Formats: sequence, structure tokens, C-alpha cells
Amino acid sequence: MSKTIELAQHLETLHINNMYKSDFYWTWDKTDEELDAIFTVADALRDLRERNKSTRIFDSGLGISIFRDNSTRTRFSFASACNLLGLTVQDLDEKKSQIAHGETVRETANMVSFMADVIGIRDDMFIGEGHKYQKTFMDAVKEGYRDGILEQQPTLVNLQCDVDHPTQCMADMLHIIHQFGGVENLKGKKIAMTWAYSPSYGKPLSVPQGVIGLMTRFGMDVVLAHPEGYDVMPEVEEIAKKNAAATGGSYKKVATMEEAFQDADIVYPKSWAPFAAMEERTKLYQAGDKDGIDALEQKLLAQNAQHKDWTCSEEMMKKTRNGSALYLHCLPADITGLSCPEGEVDNSVFDRYLVPLYKEASYKPYVIAAMIMMSKVKDPVSALMALDAAGKRKFF
Amino acid sequence: MSKTIELAQHLETLHINNMYKSDFYWTWDKTDEELDAIFTVADALRDLRERNKSTRIFDSGLGISIFRDNSTRTRFSFASACNLLGLTVQDLDEKKSQIAHGETVRETANMVSFMADVIGIRDDMFIGEGHKYQKTFMDAVKEGYRDGILEQQPTLVNLQCDVDHPTQCMADMLHIIHQFGGVENLKGKKIAMTWAYSPSYGKPLSVPQGVIGLMTRFGMDVVLAHPEGYDVMPEVEEIAKKNAAATGGSYKKVATMEEAFQDADIVYPKSWAPFAAMEERTKLYQAGDKDGIDALEQKLLAQNAQHKDWTCSEEMMKKTRNGSALYLHCLPADITGLSCPEGEVDNSVFDRYLVPLYKEASYKPYVIAAMIMMSKVKDPVSALMALDAAGKRKFF
Amino acid sequence: MSKTIELAQHLETLHINNMYKSDFYWTWDKTDEELDAIFTVADALRDLRERNKSTRIFDSGLGISIFRDNSTRTRFSFASACNLLGLTVQDLDEKKSQIAHGETVRETANMVSFMADVIGIRDDMFIGEGHKYQKTFMDAVKEGYRDGILEQQPTLVNLQCDVDHPTQCMADMLHIIHQFGGVENLKGKKIAMTWAYSPSYGKPLSVPQGVIGLMTRFGMDVVLAHPEGYDVMPEVEEIAKKNAAATGGSYKKVATMEEAFQDADIVYPKSWAPFAAMEERTKLYQAGDKDGIDALEQKLLAQNAQHKDWTCSEEMMKKTRNGSALYLHCLPADITGLSCPEGEVDNSVFDRYLVPLYKEASYKPYVIAAMIMMSKVKDPVSALMALDAAGKRKFF
Repeated sequence: MSKTIELAQHLETLHINNMYKSDFYWTWDKTDEELDAIFTVADALRDLRERNKSTRIFDSGLGISIFRDNSTRTRFSFASACNLLGLTVQDLDEKKSQIAHGETVRETANMVSFMADVIGIRDDMFIGEGHKYQKTFMDAVKEGYRDGILEQQPTLVNLQCDVDHPTQCMADMLHIIHQFGGVENLKGKKIAMTWAYSPSYGKPLSVPQGVIGLMTRFGMDVVLAHPEGYDVMPEVEEIAKKNAAATGGSYKKVATMEEAFQDADIVYPKSWAPFAAMEERTKLYQAGDKDGIDALEQKLLAQNAQHKDWTCSEEMMKKTRNGSALYLHCLPADITGLSCPEGEVDNSVFDRYLVPLYKEASYKPYVIAAMIMMSKVKDPVSALMALDAAGKRKFF
Repeated sequence: MSKTIELAQHLETLHINNMYKSDFYWTWDKTDEELDAIFTVADALRDLRERNKSTRIFDSGLGISIFRDNSTRTRFSFASACNLLGLTVQDLDEKKSQIAHGETVRETANMVSFMADVIGIRDDMFIGEGHKYQKTFMDAVKEGYRDGILEQQPTLVNLQCDVDHPTQCMADMLHIIHQFGGVENLKGKKIAMTWAYSPSYGKPLSVPQGVIGLMTRFGMDVVLAHPEGYDVMPEVEEIAKKNAAATGGSYKKVATMEEAFQDADIVYPKSWAPFAAMEERTKLYQAGDKDGIDALEQKLLAQNAQHKDWTCSEEMMKKTRNGSALYLHCLPADITGLSCPEGEVDNSVFDRYLVPLYKEASYKPYVIAAMIMMSKVKDPVSALMALDAAGKRKFF
Repeated sequence: MSKTIELAQHLETLHINNMYKSDFYWTWDKTDEELDAIFTVADALRDLRERNKSTRIFDSGLGISIFRDNSTRTRFSFASACNLLGLTVQDLDEKKSQIAHGETVRETANMVSFMADVIGIRDDMFIGEGHKYQKTFMDAVKEGYRDGILEQQPTLVNLQCDVDHPTQCMADMLHIIHQFGGVENLKGKKIAMTWAYSPSYGKPLSVPQGVIGLMTRFGMDVVLAHPEGYDVMPEVEEIAKKNAAATGGSYKKVATMEEAFQDADIVYPKSWAPFAAMEERTKLYQAGDKDGIDALEQKLLAQNAQHKDWTCSEEMMKKTRNGSALYLHCLPADITGLSCPEGEVDNSVFDRYLVPLYKEASYKPYVIAAMIMMSKVKDPVSALMALDAAGKRKFF
């Protein structure tokens, strides 16, 4: 029996009826079994690919991508996932588009979705904006479907918003699961999500938020650490606490990187912007205050520069369990002595974890494909079994 | 019997032998039965899509798109149409291309068409230029096919030129047909194609021209209204007159929006540039006179601003038949109080017609797909029947 | 028996076992039989296309393109080749990407290749850089495959580097073969690869290098001519000499265009940059010396302007065998009196060779597809036979 068949049999045991036609905004909207289903289908699709089995569930169809911020990894992951399932990507490049000044999101959403099966959106630049845009967009296409404008109801894959970065964190998590040999081995493991210094300014908060919102669901001890002023959204911290309480794990905040790294099994040191400043930035942006944004940026760069000691150095790594915690990063990292003079991580640390880091990233296309498949296929168990029994991807 | 089979049977009654391998420049190049065929195939493809039938007529192949002006709706419609039929879009982005200074259209045309099945071109910016470019391009690929450079003869879908915007107007017309319950109900219906004020400058004339050139063929009373100086091409007016004479309808010009709207069943109020000024602009463009173009633009904006009363207000709509004419627009519209302080249409009017407007737009991908199918498939009747009998688009 | 079957039978006689999973950097890495295999498969794919046979060898999959310099012809050729075989192109547009300052090629390579079957790279701007980038990239994906990051090992098609332009020169060569009725007719034919004046500055050396590196393998008398200072890489000249010695042909350099054209059967007059200056330019580029590059450019333009007499005029063409040598160019050419006042070739000469020139270009998609097929298909003979026996590309 193939691995795919085993995984399909596991999928059959899960309560996943609500996933069909559903959107994927945040991991905490989903039940544990629904997340399990994503991991299971991602593994099955990877197994099929490795055995040169076609994984097309569509004969034709479109995946619309909207990147309101630059992207390489996620762009290629979305394109790979669509191709894996038989969809063609059509990118909405807002610069090349005739999107009128004042055109409503509702109109744009309908105009690009006449034959869309899935929509992938990255909008992570402004606190309070990204999720709102995705929600407005998807409400519009749902209405469009209801009103007979669209022949099918496209579903959403959140490719990063201001709140969560689910395709990243699910890929991170699937990597952890495989590194530790299964979810059952994660109970009591300590994971440190910590801020780290980067010479650049204003990275989104969605990764640390996504990590504490997701990784608290597996019985792990999740620790968040950051300098003063770099808080994440309080709503997401609340979710992390509830998750921990429900799964026998824990969530806590500590004041230093050292404390967070102490005896950690997994570390995720990464720069992000201070929340309050990001809120201020959103207001300046809404007011069109370009000078204000520049001034704020200068202030934040200066603030940033006070925390250069928050770095994943060899010294810091020694504090982790046996000095060999699993090092995670969403990439690209700011690497001391390689991409910048002082950054998030020592070159020697980064280099030692290169292969696992790239493997971590390699789960993203499969996670996205699994999200799409679960939202578009009514009976995914039968679909996996049929794919397992069917033809080749490379014919010769 | 499915709707597709019924439509295929209707298609069988039409004289459509000349459509195979033909280009689609202007609706008035086509016979009534040929336009009927486009509508019929568009409806059939939509019916197949709704029933999750695959509509692939190609196993592989390319649709080349060239947008010499910005586009969202038409870009996504062309991409959707190509995908629907099994073609992949390859866009010629002239900015990213190594198109040498002075490179001939003939060379570019051949270089991008080695495996092109269909070419979609938008070139609507300059009077006297857009159609010429399309014609030169297609003559070149025809010669390329004749000379053994190309293995297949690609066909054209005009995605908007300086003269006509057939994919838009055919979609508008198909929307009208469905709203009124069939072509047979259109005799004697009054449609008002009117100029409307927009704060922007220089929109193409191809929509009003396309509308009067097409809608005069269905026995309707077509009325054109615009301020002095905003004439459309006289050649197209001649076509409108001949069409009307041939179908028992009428074509006339009136001097005010009020008169045009009076008892109208359908209204299409939309901004466009003054013809004479557009001709002047073409000359300045050919002479490379950037300052001249800017000066002209200022003059035209001032001229424009004198006609702010040409707007589709609630008052204006009350003049139409039962105050409830069908409101059309090619989108995006300039909406008073939403996208601009004073524009083409009141927000409340636009909002009331939102669903029908988006439906109007939703026909465009199917109309384009039908144009492609009729030019690439020798026996479209059998093709539709085969598609109806064949497999799924979404496999699971 | 179809032409494809004949070609497949010829393919069966060749020693081509090393081509599977191999990269295509330079023609001189490949044996004569391997090049023969590329030509054979290119012809077979063209024959299949002409007979409306599907040539898909992939059910799904990605071809990644990276154009670090502008491109139309090669971009469309790569897209056509991928489509021909069933792959979808995903372009890495470095401007739209989140490629961090200092991000290693190794990281980028892995991040874009999770589901890549083939990688096409153009990087021709700087001597000593282009090939290095391609090599680093491909080493990284090989490691990625070995380490379990990638599920498949993507192969390279060099779409032009600083050393060779194999897809161009193989297309040129296939054109020559067909024009002269077979490789067996090329012995003793004289081909003149000469520099020609262009008003633009700094065209890559990879075409003349690729030409002398490839065309010396067919028993032809290959002559290179250029003004002083416009030498090509000495390593490639060494290869040309060895090739000539091995095949009974010859390679020599002459000092004037006249001498090169004298009794030539084939001429390839084309501008390129002086090698030493290109090396200097690379250093200035590495030092980020923008002013230095500008100054160098001025110097080179002045140097260029001294050689306006190096032009493929009607007079010059008269010197060739019967005044009717086959004129080659990779396009776009700088055409005197058409695209510039003084350029590489007289308008009347260029115009007379238009059809053969476009045919020359038309081989590129098939050559690229053949390179991909030979590197991805283990048993190409059976694959061609199966394609010949199988279904249609256009279904109706």
C-alpha cells in the first residue's frame, strides 16, 4: 500500500466536511482536524509527485494571484501549487492594470474572477488593512457567485496578510512535524519565537503572530521574546493562550532572547516592526503623509539599532537544548557577514542549517496545493485514491 | 437534451463556413449569421462550464496578447478565454522586450508567433494607428505562414482598436439579448449611446463606435448624443445608417442627453474624446511633440469641463422608459461621489445596476472564447456536441 | 512511414545516453552525436506539429525562465518550447521579487525550483559573469535535489551567457543544414562570421563565439573577421581550431570584411563589443563605478564609429559566392536606412533575405524543445514513436 493510500485512509477519519468551498484566512479559523487534513494532503501530494504520479484535479482553470508586496518564495510556491493541480496562474499586476482611481475592491474582485477557481492574495504592508482587503475581496466574489456573475465560487488562500501568514507557518509546522518524527513527539518541546535585529525596517508581524497562533496547538511550550515596543497584536496573543490551555502546552512571554533560547528545541529568530509604530504608519499612509512615513522610518531605524544584541549568534545557539535546536526562518534572512554587517543570524549558524531551512521552504507549495484541494474537492479521500491509481506526470 | 446541444443544432443552421481561419477586426466585417454564431457558441461554452464540462479544444498552444494600453478586464477576459479552450497566454510586454528601435511590425509579428494559435491585440490610443497596427501585424503572420516560417496561421481577436471594440460590444449585446429574453424582443427598442462627462481626458472612441456599428443590426432605434465637437468617425456613422436601413431599425443623432434618454429602453452613457482633437493628438504623437500633446490635453480638459451636465443622474434616468432603462457601461465608470466629485453617473444609479453591469462584463470571456473557437475549429457543431458528451473540467 | 519515425530511427543509432538529466551550457561540451540528436529531435517535433500531433511529454510541470537582459525572441521561443512539451513557464522577474540584498544564488535557485523541470537562463551582460551565474545556479539545484529539497532535478538550457548562445547557434546551424540540403553538403563551404558596425554599444560576444565554436564542427571553412580590438575570447578560438582540425575543415582569422566575404557561401555580419573593453566594464560593474561605465561607453562609441565601413552592403555581398551567399543574423539587425542611418546591413540586402532570416529564427523554439526533451526523457526514441502514434494537438 502506497504512502498516499495510507494518508487517504487517515484523511477519511477526520471531520472535514466544512472545508469544501471554504476560504483560508487564518489557521485559528480551522479546527485541529482541518489542519491535520492540510498536512495529510500536502504529504500525499508530495508522495505522488515523488512517484511521478499526475496530481491534476483540474483539466483547466485559473488561480488568480495578487501580490500587493514583493514576493519570490510565495509567488513561486503559489505558481507551483496551481500547476501541480492543473490550474494556470493569472497574476493581477496592479501597475499594468486599468484599475481606475477610486475603483472599488468589489468591482476589481468580480472583474478578475470570471473564471477563477482560487484566489491567492498577499497584502501585508499595513496593520488593519491586509485582512480587510482579503475579506472585502472574497465577500465580493461570493456575492458575484450568488448573483450569477461568476460560474464558480473561487476560494481564498491567504498568501500573507497583516495578521497571519498561514502558508508559511503551516509549512514551518509540517517541517517541524517531519523533523521530530510526528506530531506525537512534540508534546513538551520548547519553541522560541524571538525578535532579531535586522538593518532593514518594518517587516510584517504576520510571521511571529502566525507562529504563536499555530504552534500553541500541538502541546508545545511556546515562548515569545522581543525588545520593549515590539509587541504583536494582543488578539493573537489571546488566541495563543487559549490554544495552549486547550492542548496542554503553554504560551509565555519573556524579556530576553537568552531566556527564550534557554533549552529550546526549536528557535525562530526573526526581525519584525514594532506594532504601535505600524499602526501609526497605517494612519500616515491613509493620510497620504509621505514625509511622516519617512520620519517614522528614521525613528524606527534608530530604535532598531539599539537592539543589535538580539542576534542568533553561535553563543546564543549554545544555550539551546544540547546546543542544537532546530533553527527556523521564513527566508530571506539577514545574515551577519554575508548579506549585512550585523543581522538576524551568524553566517556559521545559518550555513549549518541550510539544508533543513530549504526543506522548510519546500513544504510551502504542497501546503498551498493542499489548501486549494481541500477547498475545491468535495471528496478528497476518493480523489487521492484515484490519483494514486492513475497516470504519470512525466509521460516518458 | 442539453442547452449546448440545442445551441449546436441552431449553429448548424447558420452559414458560417467563412469563419474558419478568419480574423475578427470589426463586427461590421461579419454577417448577421456569423455574429449569431459567436453569441451561440458563447452561450454554449458558458453552459458547458456551468455543468463542469471541459471545453478544451486544444491540448496545447499559445494565445499571444499585446496590450499597448493598460487593461484589467480585457486582459483577464482574454486569459480566461484562452484557458477555457486549452491555450496558454504569452504576453508581449513591450517594455521587457528586446524590440529594437525601428524594428518592423512584420519582424515582431513573426518572432512572437512561431507557435501562436491566436493573437489578441489592444491598440486604441491613437486615431488612425490602432487598426493599422493590427492589420500590419496579421498580414505579416499570414505571409509568415505562407512562407513556411510559421506552422499554423494564427488568427486575430481585436481586443480594442481605434475604430471598434468588438469583444466589449458583443458582450454588451449578448447581455442585452439575455436581459430582453432574446433577439426577437429587441425590434423597436430604443438604445441611447450618449457621451458623459468624466474628469479624465481622452478615452477611446471605439466603444461608442462599436455600439452604433453593432446595435443598429437588431432592429433597434439607436440614438447617439454628444456635445458639439465630440463626433465619432463618419465612416462608422455611415455603417450605422446602412445597418439600420437593412434591419428595419433606425439610427439618428440628437443634440442633448435628455432627448436621447427620453423613453429609452437601454442607455449607455460614457465619456470619450473629441474626434478632431484625437486626430490632432495622433499628429503630435507622430511628430514626437510631447509639449504639444500636453497643451492639447489642457485644452481638452477645459473643453470637457464645460459639459459636466452630461451625466447619468437619477433625474436623467427618470426620463427613460418607466424610469428603468437598462444601464450599460464597459467599466470602469467615473462615479460621482465615489471615484470622483463629478463623473459619468450618479453613485445611486450605478449601485442599483451593479449586478447587471458585472453580468454584462461576465460575457466577455465567453465572447472571446467563441471568437477563437469559430476561427480555429473547422466543424464547431461537432466540436460542441463532442464537448457536451465528454469529460469533466474539475475531475473530482 | 512518417518523417518522425524516420528521425526516431536515426536517433536510435546515436550514442546519447549521457544526455538524460544533463545541462546544456555550451555546444562544445556535447559530442557530435549529441548535437545530431538535438537537430533530429527538433525536426521530429516540427514534423509532429505540422501534422497536428500532440507533443506533450509532461502532464504538468514548470519551466523557470530568468532573463537578466531584455529578450523577445528567446523569451517567446522558450515559452513556445515549454508549451510544446506540456510545461508552464514561470518567469523570475528580479524586479518584482523579494530577492534580498546579498541573497545567495544558491538560495534563490532552490526557492524557485521546488517544482521546476527545466531552467532557462539568459545572463550575457558581463564577461566572466554570465556562465558563472548559470553554473552556481545549477550546482545549487543539483545539491537541492541530492538533499531532498527538490523532488526532481531540473536541467539547464543556456539561453545566452557571456561565452556561448547555444539555442541561437543551433537554430542558425539547423537552418544552414536545411538550406544546404543536409550536413553532408557542408564540407568545404565557407562561412564568414564578421563584425559589423552598429550605432549601439556593447552587444554580447556570445553569438560570434558560439558560431565559431559550433560551425567549425561540420567540415566548413570558418573565417572570423573584425577590426582591431574586437577579439573574441581566446579559449573559444582554441576550441574552434581544434574542432576544425578534427573535422577536416578550417578556422582562420582575417583582417577585413572584404577578405572574409570573398567567395563565402554563408555570411553572418554582426556587431559586438570589444573583448578587453568588456572585461574592463565587468570590473567597473563589480566596483559599482557607474561613472566609469558611462565614460567607457563614450570611448567605445567613438571607437565603434571609426568602423562604419564594416557593413553588409550590396557591394560587399557581391564578393560572396555568385553574389548570393546565405545571409544570417540573430535579429534584431541594425538596418541602414530603416532602423538607423548607418548600420550592420543595407536595407535592400536585409529585405531580400527576410524569409530565410525569419525561418532561421523559427528553428529556435524547436531546438530549445529538443534540448529539454533530450535532458528529461530517458528513452527519446520510444517517446517520439509514441507521440507519432498518439492524439491530436488541436482536437477539432
